[in-house]
Amino acid sequence: MTVKTDELAGALLWPRSVALVGASDDPAKTSSRPLRYLRASGFTGRVYPVNPRREYVGGERAWPSLADLPEVPDHVYVMTGAEQAIEAVGECGRLGVPVATVLASGFGEEGEQGREREARLRAAAGTTRVLGPSSLGVVNPRNGMLLTANAAFAETDLAPGGVFVASHSGSVIGALVSRGKQRGISFAGLVSTGGEANLSLGEICLSTVDDEGIGSYALFLESLHHSDELAEFALAAAERGKPVVVYKLGRSAQGAQLSVSHTGALAGSDEEADAFFRACGISRVDNLEALIEAPALLERVPAGKGTADFSVAVLTTTGGGAALIVDQLGLRGIEVRAPSAPLLRRIQALGAPVTDSIVMDLTLAGAKHEIVSGALDELQHSGEFDLVVMVVGSSARFHPELAVKAVAERAGGPTPLAAFAVPDALQALAALAEAGVPAFRTPEAIVEAITAAASRPGAPAYRPSTRGAATGTRQVLDEVDSYRVLDKVGITAQARVEVSIDEVLEGRVPAGLPYPVAVKVLSAEIAHKTDAGGVVLGVSGERELVDAARAIAAAVSESGGTAERLLVTEMAPSGVDALVGYRVSDEVGPLIMVAAGGITAELYRDSSLRLAPVDLATAHEMIREVKGLTPVVGYRGSSGDVDALASAIVALSTLAESAPAVLEAEVNPLRVFGPGEGATALDALVCVTGHG
Amino acid sequence: MTVKTDELAGALLWPRSVALVGASDDPAKTSSRPLRYLRASGFTGRVYPVNPRREYVGGERAWPSLADLPEVPDHVYVMTGAEQAIEAVGECGRLGVPVATVLASGFGEEGEQGREREARLRAAAGTTRVLGPSSLGVVNPRNGMLLTANAAFAETDLAPGGVFVASHSGSVIGALVSRGKQRGISFAGLVSTGGEANLSLGEICLSTVDDEGIGSYALFLESLHHSDELAEFALAAAERGKPVVVYKLGRSAQGAQLSVSHTGALAGSDEEADAFFRACGISRVDNLEALIEAPALLERVPAGKGTADFSVAVLTTTGGGAALIVDQLGLRGIEVRAPSAPLLRRIQALGAPVTDSIVMDLTLAGAKHEIVSGALDELQHSGEFDLVVMVVGSSARFHPELAVKAVAERAGGPTPLAAFAVPDALQALAALAEAGVPAFRTPEAIVEAITAAASRPGAPAYRPSTRGAATGTRQVLDEVDSYRVLDKVGITAQARVEVSIDEVLEGRVPAGLPYPVAVKVLSAEIAHKTDAGGVVLGVSGERELVDAARAIAAAVSESGGTAERLLVTEMAPSGVDALVGYRVSDEVGPLIMVAAGGITAELYRDSSLRLAPVDLATAHEMIREVKGLTPVVGYRGSSGDVDALASAIVALSTLAESAPAVLEAEVNPLRVFGPGEGATALDALVCVTGHG
Repeated sequence: MTVKTDELAGALLWPRSVALVGASDDPAKTSSRPLRYLRASGFTGRVYPVNPRREYVGGERAWPSLADLPEVPDHVYVMTGAEQAIEAVGECGRLGVPVATVLASGFGEEGEQGREREARLRAAAGTTRVLGPSSLGVVNPRNGMLLTANAAFAETDLAPGGVFVASHSGSVIGALVSRGKQRGISFAGLVSTGGEANLSLGEICLSTVDDEGIGSYALFLESLHHSDELAEFALAAAERGKPVVVYKLGRSAQGAQLSVSHTGALAGSDEEADAFFRACGISRVDNLEALIEAPALLERVPAGKGTADFSVAVLTTTGGGAALIVDQLGLRGIEVRAPSAPLLRRIQALGAPVTDSIVMDLTLAGAKHEIVSGALDELQHSGEFDLVVMVVGSSARFHPELAVKAVAERAGGPTPLAAFAVPDALQALAALAEAGVPAFRTPEAIVEAITAAASRPGAPAYRPSTRGAATGTRQVLDEVDSYRVLDKVGITAQARVEVSIDEVLEGRVPAGLPYPVAVKVLSAEIAHKTDAGGVVLGVSGERELVDAARAIAAAVSESGGTAERLLVTEMAPSGVDALVGYRVSDEVGPLIMVAAGGITAELYRDSSLRLAPVDLATAHEMIREVKGLTPVVGYRGSSGDVDALASAIVALSTLAESAPAVLEAEVNPLRVFGPGEGATALDALVCVTGHG
Repeated sequence: MTVKTDELAGALLWPRSVALVGASDDPAKTSSRPLRYLRASGFTGRVYPVNPRREYVGGERAWPSLADLPEVPDHVYVMTGAEQAIEAVGECGRLGVPVATVLASGFGEEGEQGREREARLRAAAGTTRVLGPSSLGVVNPRNGMLLTANAAFAETDLAPGGVFVASHSGSVIGALVSRGKQRGISFAGLVSTGGEANLSLGEICLSTVDDEGIGSYALFLESLHHSDELAEFALAAAERGKPVVVYKLGRSAQGAQLSVSHTGALAGSDEEADAFFRACGISRVDNLEALIEAPALLERVPAGKGTADFSVAVLTTTGGGAALIVDQLGLRGIEVRAPSAPLLRRIQALGAPVTDSIVMDLTLAGAKHEIVSGALDELQHSGEFDLVVMVVGSSARFHPELAVKAVAERAGGPTPLAAFAVPDALQALAALAEAGVPAFRTPEAIVEAITAAASRPGAPAYRPSTRGAATGTRQVLDEVDSYRVLDKVGITAQARVEVSIDEVLEGRVPAGLPYPVAVKVLSAEIAHKTDAGGVVLGVSGERELVDAARAIAAAVSESGGTAERLLVTEMAPSGVDALVGYRVSDEVGPLIMVAAGGITAELYRDSSLRLAPVDLATAHEMIREVKGLTPVVGYRGSSGDVDALASAIVALSTLAESAPAVLEAEVNPLRVFGPGEGATALDALVCVTGHG
């Protein structure tokens, strides 16, 4: 029987008993750490060192095998080498151990042999859920459960907090826990997920989502393997109002390459990851410390406001320090607003020397407890702001009883607060964090956190895909068959006539063609028709059509192909060309993309990407994100049929639900005519899963 | 007599005597601080409190006025209100005091009254150089000269170091000094320049440039006022191999607005600032802590290598931690390289478990002093890298005697080193800094610093401008006169004929026009000819020319203008259109810009900007920076006359030297033909300083 999610969280974080297979008596060895840490942290569950070669380990009785223990432990940490680990996990499976965590590496990430080993590990596990391999373990600061080989936990005095950390990288956990400790950010749990051979990061987080001690999640990702389980967790977290913040490697090709070599994760493209996170309501940050600093802010600021409507007040005792964050917020489209005239007057009436500016600068003279208190009360009760930011100068370091204390006392006020200390002031940050005020060490991190808070969607758009994994061979359709697929979802193409080249060359030309016409070679083998010389535009009559057919046959033959059929279509009126594409990613499933047609999209990487399907509102949002489509939205007094373009995006995106065999579909170009005049596909390419 | 630069630095940083005008006896007052700080820090110069209302201040004898002092002090800090400060500075002038620093605000930044006050301050000063107003003072940690009212210096135990800080904002100095102190970065001096009414930041830094105790400069800027003096300093610093790092506000419009309101600085556009810094060899950073962390690295890495050729080795005890910086370096085009096969074998022979990867991961097992030492020796002596980066994991926090010690011992090795500690490890960072290894607290800062080191030019391109400030009224030239200006610098336009509209309408059309032609209204009053209906293209004969003249006259008249003359030019062959523009900025002087023609430049803000003049190599570099000009450089097998475009850029940029009256000159479009076929201006607009 598989462990259910709440049982899973129980065995992971709240085990009544743990066994340490391969526990070493040598304190210099990594495998000696968990026993030492568990004892130092006062874990009250039962702990069984298992080591067949020793009677005592770390001064405690050691057991020769798991089978010899007086009970079946809830959680076994296997710290032996790879082959022995498979045996130990097998024994866990036979005994009915709920969870086994595996420290060893040498599995999936290391070539053919590693993959074979990983398959044996999975098979051996039976009903035991396996965390790892390459897992540095699990930490629960709420019960002293330091079941970890991570050197970062040599300091076992961990305060419990509300942020749950799950990380593909064990060493990054050390960075987060020490940097958090330094300034008062504490954790509800930390899991090193390693290679996810069995238990995925998403599944682990999902099992904890109803844990009332957890207020938010901070995830460190190296890949988007198991994205479906990550999405399921993110939706459950969003439903419960628990924000999820992520730092993901693979922004650059160089980083993606490293991600592969160092944990065996094959990183997908970074744009796909962004589309996925956005759909799931996960906030992505690029500053490492923002990963632990942002969650507290996101817990306090309601989601769904949107960047454009988000209103930030900035109160400070140092104008220069405040400018650091106001400048950067502006770059991200977040508006810092001046108080209304009556509010400004009320604040001035307190004796605060503020002027009519987007930054309310109390100056050094205003760094007094009563003035900061009064000004914050006015701002928090005004209803004019979504967030009040206090930027504290030197007093944060030397006189925390002034501004810092005033801020800390107002953590529960009607408008959320955040604080940034301009000097180094770790104790002030810790006091603020303790009081429940999200506090930030660098201007970069507070700016990222505010941006994340302002842009967090009210409800994630992600819908679980009904598609299975693609199987069978990949098959490219010719243009006519491609149009048939598009037609089913409601994207129209130019009226077209299919003719045989041989017949045309013999002079048998269909009557009634709507000259001038476009003539294109029709073949699934020739994907790039223009490059192959397979397209002639503006063909004005029968004689010219014969010439065109001859030229196409010659050009295609010269480029090594064969041409049997031609597609003849009416020349389209002028308009703005767009590219609308659909594809199924291995990492995140169906995606829909829109870009400008022609070379601009390629030169500027100017496109908008979302998980498919999308609704009309999202399609319009996508169009506005593409600079090259400005002439459709409206530019210098002219515009295009933006509704028709949006409808085509929605239509193509429904392939995710209506046509599971379709792997890729690209309309390039989709010509968009004037307002109310529609849009039509001028070329298309569809790939499906074949049944050959 | 004006103080010479070395005398200036002497009075600023090494005064033998200082006077404190307005020194308060009340320890709660800002103006009580300098005396207290100077005494606590053990400053050995003579200190004179000046306060006509008290006999004693801070337990020391106070003097009623500057004139009553037993000597003329080298440096006077004036801490009174604005009006009294003007009087005090006047007395400094009369007495021949070399430098007076003014704390008061209420000058230039505050409207008409403030500007008038600032003029009086300047007039009162005479030969005394004035630092400020709004200056929080000057600090020299090398002699305990804490002549500052900045609360940040309440900790007076400052270690002396090699970085000189100059900042428009006084409070940001507090951020830098405390954050530096926390992890062992120390300073050779810190100056709050305030409003630069008399002494500019550039002039102050220049006066210190031969100070052997200063290795590098960290500047915090709110504006580019006095950019000529800043440039003069930057060139002198570059000549001496002293790097200059800058953080500048005004990245966003919101930030620029704030910069205005808070110190009276009118920020120029941010792109202009980038062009200026690049020309001066100044490295700009966007992470606040990079401002103090980057200088040490730049001091050690020789300038002039260039991003593309820069080779970085990454050695680590934690693969996940190293990935944090490798990923971000990739985004900035910095290549992390694997060691050569022989080098890899030598490192493996030391017992290091590294594999053939761009990151050499020693893993936890390799976090031993002798292994790290051996691997660093091999890397530093290999000649394969410009920089060796050590990423240290948990051992940085718990066992600095392992990897950290090995790194610190190799500070003087043949290849520069840098270190990043993944966990919070401030003591390790301090030990590294102390040993002379540039050490970094966040992945973001080390990535910015490495990028700055790789891209620092060998010699700055900046040449002092010979132009005076623009005077007189601004006058727009018509197209024909604009072409005359372009012609002088060597930019050619289409052959053209100027005709009178009245004559054409009467049928008097010049013979021999090269039909088809373009017909355009010719008037300095009509800048946007096409919008005004003043352009007809493809006019094929005399009758059509008359029609075109009639249509243009009507359209221009309808849009409220008058049209008397027409310009007739041959229709140009097809090509790629570029925009080449020249302008004189108030902040940084003459600038040259190139962009793609048409709407792309506008939609994508896709342009390249430099200080003018530029040479051919720079012009080619600019062209490659503009994505929209890819079709000129080469795209899908076709290209344009990139040499002709580069020559046109160089030619237009020489307006900076050849035509001082020209304020703006734009060629839009410059049509670029095929390789070897040249380029020609199809339209132009020049603005000059009029003499009316």
